Amino acid sequence: MTGVLSVTAPVPGGPEALTLETRTLPAPGPGEMRVRVHGAGVNRPDAMQREGNYPPPPGASDVLGLELSGEVIETGPGVTRYAPGDRVMALVAGGAYAEEAIVQADVALPVPEGLSMTEAAGIPETYFTVWSNLFIRAGLKPGETALIHGGTSGIGVTATLLARAIGAEVITTCGSDEKCRASAQLGARASVNYRDTDFVAAVRDLTGGKGPEVILDMVGGPYMQRNLDLVAEDGRIAQIAFQQGSRADLDMGPVLFKRLTLCGSTLRARPLAMKAELAREVEAEVLPLILEQGARPVIDSTFALDRVQDAHARLEASAHTGKIVLLTPAA
Amino acid sequence: MTGVLSVTAPVPGGPEALTLETRTLPAPGPGEMRVRVHGAGVNRPDAMQREGNYPPPPGASDVLGLELSGEVIETGPGVTRYAPGDRVMALVAGGAYAEEAIVQADVALPVPEGLSMTEAAGIPETYFTVWSNLFIRAGLKPGETALIHGGTSGIGVTATLLARAIGAEVITTCGSDEKCRASAQLGARASVNYRDTDFVAAVRDLTGGKGPEVILDMVGGPYMQRNLDLVAEDGRIAQIAFQQGSRADLDMGPVLFKRLTLCGSTLRARPLAMKAELAREVEAEVLPLILEQGARPVIDSTFALDRVQDAHARLEASAHTGKIVLLTPAA
Repeated sequence: MTGVLSVTAPVPGGPEALTLETRTLPAPGPGEMRVRVHGAGVNRPDAMQREGNYPPPPGASDVLGLELSGEVIETGPGVTRYAPGDRVMALVAGGAYAEEAIVQADVALPVPEGLSMTEAAGIPETYFTVWSNLFIRAGLKPGETALIHGGTSGIGVTATLLARAIGAEVITTCGSDEKCRASAQLGARASVNYRDTDFVAAVRDLTGGKGPEVILDMVGGPYMQRNLDLVAEDGRIAQIAFQQGSRADLDMGPVLFKRLTLCGSTLRARPLAMKAELAREVEAEVLPLILEQGARPVIDSTFALDRVQDAHARLEASAHTGKIVLLTPAA
Repeated sequence: MTGVLSVTAPVPGGPEALTLETRTLPAPGPGEMRVRVHGAGVNRPDAMQREGNYPPPPGASDVLGLELSGEVIETGPGVTRYAPGDRVMALVAGGAYAEEAIVQADVALPVPEGLSMTEAAGIPETYFTVWSNLFIRAGLKPGETALIHGGTSGIGVTATLLARAIGAEVITTCGSDEKCRASAQLGARASVNYRDTDFVAAVRDLTGGKGPEVILDMVGGPYMQRNLDLVAEDGRIAQIAFQQGSRADLDMGPVLFKRLTLCGSTLRARPLAMKAELAREVEAEVLPLILEQGARPVIDSTFALDRVQDAHARLEASAHTGKIVLLTPAA
């Protein structure tokens, strides 16, 4: 087997810490497939891993990358759904930033007609995350209003598109007027520039005083109390990251008096069976929204695999709208 | 209409602040019934109201008492289910500590054969609370383990009985070895004396390291972080009061990494329609558990209405197991 170009961060650091090396992949084990990667989505947890703050779970590849699209090259024992040549997209616990990767067949989805392989590369991480948190755990329903923080991030864009696709209203927060305009174009009814506006007061006004029924938050820290104070009665807050930390001095009174539900989850640490179940739900419920209800992924930019440092620099400049995708030489 | 003996707390204070006065009840309005009270359950929120810390919601009686059993005397316009002479139990927003009370027919339940009126007086508040929080919101399932704080309180006893009745395991915390024994007799697999034992370490051991799937907490304050740290992956924490305050310096990391759900609610502030829905669920789902699965209310003691100060003193001494019920002269 020839070597496979792969991206690692052997010494933690900034984007310059990203290193190309040649790896040899093992043969696919039971339930696994070897996939020739077309594209890999670039996600914030990748940057955290690069900095040494988000180590891969036990047994996972130290090659970066949590999602990919590609073509099946070889299937391991017990894989019946896919055959060499099939186009798939998948969530992986690591290893997507590479020319080839090992994928668990149970967490893969076929790439449907009408979706490009570059679009497909940007789907699993954010669509699985948004589906499981905003829809399953926080139970966003048609006619409700969701406040989505970070409206132009990969997660924010996906959440906006999917919420609109089911008939919910969306309000977002963004870090510049330009991003607010981009978010509105994606379907947000209103977008609040959090740098110059108190989002609690603004969103309360925008919802006639009652607050949004659901909040999707990845900020944490000082946002946690503000979310608790703002969310509507019987509201739900889904926490998917803690970019400003997970600690705060909190008054949890609103949980009781407004009958709130706080929930949260990360994808990566979930047991495989849970990811597989999620994959089937996404295939059944979310692919139709993508193909028929205008919730196609928004691709901000693509970078060749050997320009991965530039891709991370763009992610961290936070000037992007939608997904940043790495493309392999095979793409 | 003659006067009705009623208990109020015109000047906030200890049990001695409770005052008997004679009130005149209005005629029942649309959807309302006048009920000759048999018994009224004594609950911790009553003591908070007496102290001036839990004012009745707008429009509610200032007479104390949140639950009662009694006989319908008169029905207002639109009440079709009940007629004078019917035996009912009901949640009220106030007014239960009296010889007669106005009850919303939608939140009343018929007292079934086989349940005494004294038992019925102690059902609505804790059974509605436990049903909506432990079962509906926190989703306790057969085979799971629930940690129930305050195992011998009215709520703790009801939670223990109902959890056992559906086939869940129960571990409780209590404030003395005697209470721990009482809790074990009610069905708790184990009971931890929180005064001399670290409940986090003890319950972790008792669950083979994984923690309980559900925690029912009314303590708040320093218990909040301990609950977050202890609860199992995919666990749920239901908060029904904050006896030690609602503020704490919290690390909410476990919400994300263990995929937790925190929820909470109070009964009293809910819209009537929500209480009515809950009443129908309790009638359909919980009465069978009470009558057929050994989840009958445990009555600690009864006091005549004019001994209400003694009843509150017993509540606050926290030496009781189960419900304290006030009985009217009609009982």
